[in-house]
Amino acid sequence: MAGEVVLLDAYVSMFGMRARIALAEKGIQYEYKEQDLSNKSSLLLQLNPIHKKIPVLIHNGKPVCESLIIVQYIDEVWKDKSPLMPTDPYKRAQARFWADFIDKKVYDSGRRIWTTKGEDQETAKKEFIECLKLLEGELGDKPYFGGEIFGFLDVALIPYYSWFPTYEKCGNFSIEAKCPKLVAWTKKCVQKESVAKSLAESDKVYDFALQMKQRLGIA
Amino acid sequence: MAGEVVLLDAYVSMFGMRARIALAEKGIQYEYKEQDLSNKSSLLLQLNPIHKKIPVLIHNGKPVCESLIIVQYIDEVWKDKSPLMPTDPYKRAQARFWADFIDKKVYDSGRRIWTTKGEDQETAKKEFIECLKLLEGELGDKPYFGGEIFGFLDVALIPYYSWFPTYEKCGNFSIEAKCPKLVAWTKKCVQKESVAKSLAESDKVYDFALQMKQRLGIA
Repeated sequence: MAGEVVLLDAYVSMFGMRARIALAEKGIQYEYKEQDLSNKSSLLLQLNPIHKKIPVLIHNGKPVCESLIIVQYIDEVWKDKSPLMPTDPYKRAQARFWADFIDKKVYDSGRRIWTTKGEDQETAKKEFIECLKLLEGELGDKPYFGGEIFGFLDVALIPYYSWFPTYEKCGNFSIEAKCPKLVAWTKKCVQKESVAKSLAESDKVYDFALQMKQRLGIA
Repeated sequence: MAGEVVLLDAYVSMFGMRARIALAEKGIQYEYKEQDLSNKSSLLLQLNPIHKKIPVLIHNGKPVCESLIIVQYIDEVWKDKSPLMPTDPYKRAQARFWADFIDKKVYDSGRRIWTTKGEDQETAKKEFIECLKLLEGELGDKPYFGGEIFGFLDVALIPYYSWFPTYEKCGNFSIEAKCPKLVAWTKKCVQKESVAKSLAESDKVYDFALQMKQRLGIA
């Protein structure tokens, strides 16, 4: 019994995609409620008054906020199917470390690739690739970050795949040329149904980015 | 058997204090290695090459970085004594949410109280008190954030107690006047031996802040 599960989300959000993938991995049925982030709903403001951000998972009426916390919650509540977090405490700590690294470093440098120009954009591209190379090192020769199975850190990173073409078109560079092993990992991940059906289409992400650039006056 | 446990730390760090409290709660013996953050050791740079920050917990030669991840690691490895994380998944998610909130909001506004002046300082004080009031709301009428027992979120927040007098002297305000229930909670926490022996003396924190202000040219 999953109970009543609702997800407040935005289609193009890499944070929202994490929650969608985790729910799909566990086979949980839920009601999806797309949110307009330019005109936030009273439901979103009421359930996440601190950060006012999606995703918010509402489970039996109670909200859980922040995507990595949501993924851990989903993993802990529906623990019998597709465990995402490693069982070994050291591996858990490493998975949490790198997921936190993605939020602290990858998101920001990725965003600056499509919201800046010139020297700032070059710096952003350099930082972004450096981050991906560090993650590639952590992946090593394993099929997934979780080892033989798709796990927590895979869930945390794979949504960026939807954004790769946007970064590449806006920044005029190739991620695969710099990080071939990481791109090979993305291709393995998207063969999973849970991932394929949860990721935003990269064309729609690109359209969103172009619209945002216009709105921000950097088109 | 605790194995070999080493902590790379800095005495006045609220992040380091979290690790010290968690280790004390579990009764773990460890070697403490104070780090000079103005001249980082090759050991620190080698074991935390990504962030180059303390604390680093070294357990049987393997490093764990980022204080909240360290506290969870300690709780998961030495799980038989003084459990810190709630067992209920929803309470775990809430504890993680508020600990993350402390790192995202409380640290920064607190730091700006003693590193800025004038209007910036007034803004920082206002934000800091707003954060503490939100935390006071989360505490409610419970003895600890963890409920009847001292837990993960208590460990995450109580190190700020060592910094309260520094914020108050530099900002010329009283935290207790604004947040009496939170201050009552701090007084309960410091009666615990694990906390009392792990917190930095507030006089030494204040001396450190004055030295830093001089170095930053804002004395």
